Amino acid sequence: MNILVLNAGSSTLKFELIRTDRERLAADADEKLARGVIERIGAEAILELDVTGGGHRVETAPLADIREAVEWLLRWIASAESGIDIDSLAEIHGVGHRVVHGGEDFRASVRIDDDVLSRLQDMIHLAPLHNPHNIRGIEAVRQVLGSGVPQAAVFDTAFHADLPEHAYLYAVPYSLYRRHRIRRYGFHGTSHRYVAWRYRKLLEVEKEDVRIITVHLGNGCSACAIDGGRSVDTSMGFTPLEGLVMGTRAGDLDPALLEYIAAREGMNVREVTNLLNKQSGLLGISGLTHDMRELLAEEAEHDDRRARLAIDLFCYRVRKYLGSYLAVLEGADAIVLTGGIGQNSAAIRQRILGPMGWAGLHLDEARNSDSADRGPRRVSTDDSPLAAWVIPTDEELLIARDTVRLIG
Amino acid sequence: MNILVLNAGSSTLKFELIRTDRERLAADADEKLARGVIERIGAEAILELDVTGGGHRVETAPLADIREAVEWLLRWIASAESGIDIDSLAEIHGVGHRVVHGGEDFRASVRIDDDVLSRLQDMIHLAPLHNPHNIRGIEAVRQVLGSGVPQAAVFDTAFHADLPEHAYLYAVPYSLYRRHRIRRYGFHGTSHRYVAWRYRKLLEVEKEDVRIITVHLGNGCSACAIDGGRSVDTSMGFTPLEGLVMGTRAGDLDPALLEYIAAREGMNVREVTNLLNKQSGLLGISGLTHDMRELLAEEAEHDDRRARLAIDLFCYRVRKYLGSYLAVLEGADAIVLTGGIGQNSAAIRQRILGPMGWAGLHLDEARNSDSADRGPRRVSTDDSPLAAWVIPTDEELLIARDTVRLIG
Repeated sequence: MNILVLNAGSSTLKFELIRTDRERLAADADEKLARGVIERIGAEAILELDVTGGGHRVETAPLADIREAVEWLLRWIASAESGIDIDSLAEIHGVGHRVVHGGEDFRASVRIDDDVLSRLQDMIHLAPLHNPHNIRGIEAVRQVLGSGVPQAAVFDTAFHADLPEHAYLYAVPYSLYRRHRIRRYGFHGTSHRYVAWRYRKLLEVEKEDVRIITVHLGNGCSACAIDGGRSVDTSMGFTPLEGLVMGTRAGDLDPALLEYIAAREGMNVREVTNLLNKQSGLLGISGLTHDMRELLAEEAEHDDRRARLAIDLFCYRVRKYLGSYLAVLEGADAIVLTGGIGQNSAAIRQRILGPMGWAGLHLDEARNSDSADRGPRRVSTDDSPLAAWVIPTDEELLIARDTVRLIG
Repeated sequence: MNILVLNAGSSTLKFELIRTDRERLAADADEKLARGVIERIGAEAILELDVTGGGHRVETAPLADIREAVEWLLRWIASAESGIDIDSLAEIHGVGHRVVHGGEDFRASVRIDDDVLSRLQDMIHLAPLHNPHNIRGIEAVRQVLGSGVPQAAVFDTAFHADLPEHAYLYAVPYSLYRRHRIRRYGFHGTSHRYVAWRYRKLLEVEKEDVRIITVHLGNGCSACAIDGGRSVDTSMGFTPLEGLVMGTRAGDLDPALLEYIAAREGMNVREVTNLLNKQSGLLGISGLTHDMRELLAEEAEHDDRRARLAIDLFCYRVRKYLGSYLAVLEGADAIVLTGGIGQNSAAIRQRILGPMGWAGLHLDEARNSDSADRGPRRVSTDDSPLAAWVIPTDEELLIARDTVRLIG
């Protein structure tokens, strides 16, 4: 089956086209046909398109909204010009969507029907910046392909649905949980779940025996404590603002700061929250950039004090979560880094994991700095009681596989 | 010398009268003469008075403000009726004040003069709920005893003045730190410092070799990572709201919750912050009480689900900080519990420390549950690589000792 994976944002549409089915699932032999991203939807959109075994193409097209973007994308896939081995829209057998928030209702991936769509609409207030676009992506596919083509929703929150009560509740009046479902949901669940699954396959251990800490470090960053293959705690909370320092998000801070910043800066609480989401994190401390590669370059080439400070704070806060989740898990077998920064920056891995010898984690510097190896790999020494791994994430693959399971 | 230690709140005045001097300091032979608390200042005040070797007395008196309370207290101390070996106000040689917030200016205890008082006034916005009362206490003593009697200020924040930048900065725009001094200050410093000092004396180690985690669990709760005898991280932040779950304070939560609660509950940010300070924590989850003893009773006698949940959340969050600070310190020699709950509740100690075997901490159940022993004591097994101690705190003693050093 050919599964289209979509991640629809406010003005972007990311996609991957993956050939998979139950036999390929079992054999771990899924095949990636194409991938890309459409940006600046609503204006003259820019389309970056990569076909496996083909080339990298950049096109532009006037795309007014997500529906037009989906339509353009599907026609291109089925066209001869794409070079993809798909000749008509009928050969798209299913579509899997990344949906940010599944609330408390959706505890696993789900096949989409009218009831699911209406429940997704009902919980928009939980993720007003993301879910509306995800829903629009689902509706666009229905409009273009018809409702006969099965679709599935895979939630960022679902992997964390089993958090124990003492991990998901905040110490606020319990009535706020009952009335407004205020609790820790956690995000990046598809990434943490993928990495935990890949770790299990690599080490050939049973799901019940997976006791690891996964750390996704990209534009967004989160850590996850995994026990028996399940998420038992995670650093993002009611929204993706909580937890680690991120590109532009502050992560953890004194909740009383919102009132103080509002008063001092003449802002309302929405503006302060926006500041904490958009102007903070690495960008806020450095005053330069949210991009870790640029910060590392500023530090190395110009000895920039605040670039260093931003990096130090970032790494320090990851390390605090590692300690915290070791306590949650009562020790772990491995720490697994993933995401753009986690996968690609040996320097950041060194700064985070170097001082973890107290916990029995000993980094192997040669392995860690081997930039030729881009696959899953152990970066600790062989005799390190607490192992360190790098496992590239692949959320789209997991979405495709969940979709196949639900529609196949 | 006779040192009066004062802790002035909005309608309360706590005091201790301590006889100490440089010789007694060196010999650790300070002598407590009396202690007590005056409550409901502004109305018919209630005075609880304890004289060492004397009895416990409760009196009432119409006391309009802190000045009248200080005046009443000083006259009572010097009166024959108190039974204290002090015959006139001239025998009060110095007064030490607990001051909550020293900002970035006051990095250690300080003798009070006009300049100090004016700088304290300037930073009231950092602790609007506490510092004004502390200042009123200082002024009241001046009015009653005259400015000839030396006074000292001992700050809750001072012990944390040496936090490294990556521990005290939040990942918000750096300009907010520069413009408004928005940073982690930390509180309970006098308690953490006392406990670290007492630990050092008990184990006869040098200050440089003290690498411990101190946990103050009372109405307010905070943890502190201490390296080389200095605080290198602590859980309270810009205000005492951040960090552990407390009696009525929420501790850590997603900063985005303030906007959401404000919108859903029709509150402004000040009201939400107030809710997080006054209606949250153990009280908020249980819906019953902020008092840990009452919660433990509800759990034991009625199997109350939400009492248990509140206790579980409380203990879980302490344990997460223990792990976090083990990472900060790269391992530690001991965890030291103090404060009303930390000192008195073997059950809570068991629930916090029981699952810390992964870190080499093995609780000795007999020692932990020995309720007869109220002094400093080890509660881990002798061969526990990470020790656990209970050390009763004594902030007043440290305030008296600092006062003697500054005025003696």
